[in-house]
Amino acid sequence: MKLIAKLFDEESAEPHVTVHRDDCRELGVKPLDRVKIEAASSHVIVVTISDTVVKKGHILIPGPILNKIGAKDKQAIEVTYSPKPDSVRGIRKKMDAQKLTRDEIHEIVFDILENRLSKVEISAWLTALYINGMDTEEIANFTNSMVSTGEKITFDRTPVFDFHSLGGVPGNKITPIVVSIVAAAGLMLPKTSSRAISSACGTSDFVEVFCDVELEASRLKKISEEVGGVLAWGGSMNIAPVDDMVIDIEYLLSINPRAQMLASILSKKLAISATHLLVDIPMGAGTKVKTLEEAREYARDLMELGTKLGMRTECAITYGDQPVGSAIGPALEARECIRILEGNPHPASVVEKACDLAGMILEMGGIPDGPTKAREILSSGAAFKKFREIVEAQGGKKDLVSEDIPLGKYVNDVKAVRSGYVHHINNKDLVTIARAAGAPSDKGAGILLFRKKGQRAEKGETLFQIYADNQIKADRARDVAIKLEPMDIEGMLIKKVPNPSALKSI
Amino acid sequence: MKLIAKLFDEESAEPHVTVHRDDCRELGVKPLDRVKIEAASSHVIVVTISDTVVKKGHILIPGPILNKIGAKDKQAIEVTYSPKPDSVRGIRKKMDAQKLTRDEIHEIVFDILENRLSKVEISAWLTALYINGMDTEEIANFTNSMVSTGEKITFDRTPVFDFHSLGGVPGNKITPIVVSIVAAAGLMLPKTSSRAISSACGTSDFVEVFCDVELEASRLKKISEEVGGVLAWGGSMNIAPVDDMVIDIEYLLSINPRAQMLASILSKKLAISATHLLVDIPMGAGTKVKTLEEAREYARDLMELGTKLGMRTECAITYGDQPVGSAIGPALEARECIRILEGNPHPASVVEKACDLAGMILEMGGIPDGPTKAREILSSGAAFKKFREIVEAQGGKKDLVSEDIPLGKYVNDVKAVRSGYVHHINNKDLVTIARAAGAPSDKGAGILLFRKKGQRAEKGETLFQIYADNQIKADRARDVAIKLEPMDIEGMLIKKVPNPSALKSI
Repeated sequence: MKLIAKLFDEESAEPHVTVHRDDCRELGVKPLDRVKIEAASSHVIVVTISDTVVKKGHILIPGPILNKIGAKDKQAIEVTYSPKPDSVRGIRKKMDAQKLTRDEIHEIVFDILENRLSKVEISAWLTALYINGMDTEEIANFTNSMVSTGEKITFDRTPVFDFHSLGGVPGNKITPIVVSIVAAAGLMLPKTSSRAISSACGTSDFVEVFCDVELEASRLKKISEEVGGVLAWGGSMNIAPVDDMVIDIEYLLSINPRAQMLASILSKKLAISATHLLVDIPMGAGTKVKTLEEAREYARDLMELGTKLGMRTECAITYGDQPVGSAIGPALEARECIRILEGNPHPASVVEKACDLAGMILEMGGIPDGPTKAREILSSGAAFKKFREIVEAQGGKKDLVSEDIPLGKYVNDVKAVRSGYVHHINNKDLVTIARAAGAPSDKGAGILLFRKKGQRAEKGETLFQIYADNQIKADRARDVAIKLEPMDIEGMLIKKVPNPSALKSI
Repeated sequence: MKLIAKLFDEESAEPHVTVHRDDCRELGVKPLDRVKIEAASSHVIVVTISDTVVKKGHILIPGPILNKIGAKDKQAIEVTYSPKPDSVRGIRKKMDAQKLTRDEIHEIVFDILENRLSKVEISAWLTALYINGMDTEEIANFTNSMVSTGEKITFDRTPVFDFHSLGGVPGNKITPIVVSIVAAAGLMLPKTSSRAISSACGTSDFVEVFCDVELEASRLKKISEEVGGVLAWGGSMNIAPVDDMVIDIEYLLSINPRAQMLASILSKKLAISATHLLVDIPMGAGTKVKTLEEAREYARDLMELGTKLGMRTECAITYGDQPVGSAIGPALEARECIRILEGNPHPASVVEKACDLAGMILEMGGIPDGPTKAREILSSGAAFKKFREIVEAQGGKKDLVSEDIPLGKYVNDVKAVRSGYVHHINNKDLVTIARAAGAPSDKGAGILLFRKKGQRAEKGETLFQIYADNQIKADRARDVAIKLEPMDIEGMLIKKVPNPSALKSI
């Protein structure tokens, strides 16, 4: 039937059109069903029903969708019922623990891209993927499908080095250091990073504090080829866009299915034509990978898949039991990162991790004695020089120094309630506190650690500081911190043994 | 923060409130997140973001939710960010194939009831349940939770007989016949039925053609106790409401997890205080239960669970390879059902199934030789008399006859394209065709079968008729029928062997 399109700008969990109840009856659709809307081109989309928000004969359409079908506000468009997409069968097959063909996987990826699968169906898909998994062949097909649904960047220079961290460890601000060292050594590393999903600060969240990260493909290519390195936000190009479309559901469900994660990493690397890839696998209680055996499995999978997909892939299993360095949150991490590039040797954990990983990349590029060479490049100032070139090419301040980065003005100290040694730091609790303080969207918000594992604190000494852009968030984060106690301080008193009768009266 | 409530009547896939982008930033919420809204009482609900649909400082709230929190249009209400509910952990546990405790199950059921879990999360829950299942103890706890979140009906008469069909076989219009026979024999059977979800016609869809099915609990009780039988729509009472809240997602995903299905059936029976339960398990290619072994497993599970929950439970495995009787769709099934009650012995499959099942219930009630007794009650007219009492008590026409039921006025014949025997009928295809014709919402729409399995048809003879309430739907359904060919007619030509070179040119 013909309905008059009306522009509607709601940003809901899921793109949808709104149609009057009577028209829905006529179309034979109910909520969660799909309609095909058609003008210059057509699009399939989920329908929402209303008695009053929309008039009979009208259809409310979000702006981006209206553009997509090439229609204008108030234009009459054709609306018809659209049955379930075929890819629902592939999802069902994975629920039944069956192996999917290349075509079935491609159909699912493509239907997610085209919004033909609803969030409810994508949720079922991710759950089935989490539970039943995929074999290497399926993941390779999955990866290729993800690449094929997005933009692909090719370079005039080869080889193309790339680097990725599985994440899960807070404060992991090594990327600008690694990229600067590698580029200073004459290799090309066009790094695309992500923003935080469930963490307190992704690489792009802190890099954008001092320069643009939203680069078009042509600009990324130019900077990479001329300067040797780039620090871009992957989401600003249309590479493997499907991956970004499922991230909010993964976040909601607190799952990251192994197959999705592997295909996600590798598709982004394939899309920028990487020939050599180093993957950092942080391992520890608070990270995605808890044990060495699990880390080895990831490494095996990544190397097998990388080879299958034509990339020389190496992995580094790194210590992830506590934050890397002392700073968590965009501005705080940016400062700590730049300070190390300026020549400050602390925190040592950041310096060591960055140089060891950069060293592995140098060796993949044929430069012997990589870690030593990486340290030389850092201490000589060559890495900092290269870093400033990258920042400038990305529209940042010329001759940037760490002190240029403004921090949150509202600071709360969290103090030790007893004396003792820090025998455990809970990564996830720190993330929760940093987010309560406003990170990653409030750039000045975060945590600065005064103590790390094994260090002694006396009662009343500051364990960490909370930074925030306003007092309410600073106080909220402090309250969360007091409740969560992210650092275990082991004092003399190991265990209280209260009188049972006293317990009963509580 | 305080926002001004504005009534908003949209019926979307999921209840949600709409808040201005600036206010969302202030609240720290993004799409899919939840807020707590609070006036006289509080409610947690998913948030949608807009720049223009809602003004800054306002919040759009659906009518039912506005009532729930005891607020009025234009009233200032308190809105705060609400973290993920704890039940998400239980869902994750089931994803990890772990056994859930009674409390964990109850938390999930309760959070679904209270809209604290989003459709995305419920989808993950059902998928995990489908893949990893539940043991008998978990299902019993699940059932009790579902009962406890709804209304419970108790009767002054005992025992209370009940009857349920697992479904999946089209044209299964036996329920009014079974209830009438059992009630005519002096037993009480307060039958609650469902409407079609994915089928062409549920019992309530065709019963409401000739009488009210939306009965309040007190009216259901009164009619049952006085007349001995009732034919109510289960959804009109608030019994096990959570089950109905997940049905649309099950439908969307085309799954019906075994644990959900068993808990759903038994919770509805427990909620109306059933003491004796007969479950019909249709078995066959097009039904939910494909093999005898699977049917036996269902029977074992149902009897074990029924016993655990205090109901004497028996099962009947019935033939479901093709439709029961000849009519599919509300008016057509109503007519066929009433015609049998009037004394017509055809279609025999309906008469046999109804009398055999009614007979089993009579025997559970201590009446010997049940099936014979059931046939006597039907042929004597006692069942029809009882049926008319029920219909009248439910506000239907006094002295109803089958001819009172109007059928769809637009009829298309689907004819045999070759001569031969019907060697297979595809249940699901028939359902698709009937739904394309408008069933179950268009009461006159459906299919009338002229041939069933094993019968011969000559080329050009009518295999079945499609009924619809308008020409467009009648034609649409005919097109679907021609495409799907739901009846396989095996002629003399079994297989064509085309010339391979001719094939290439296609």
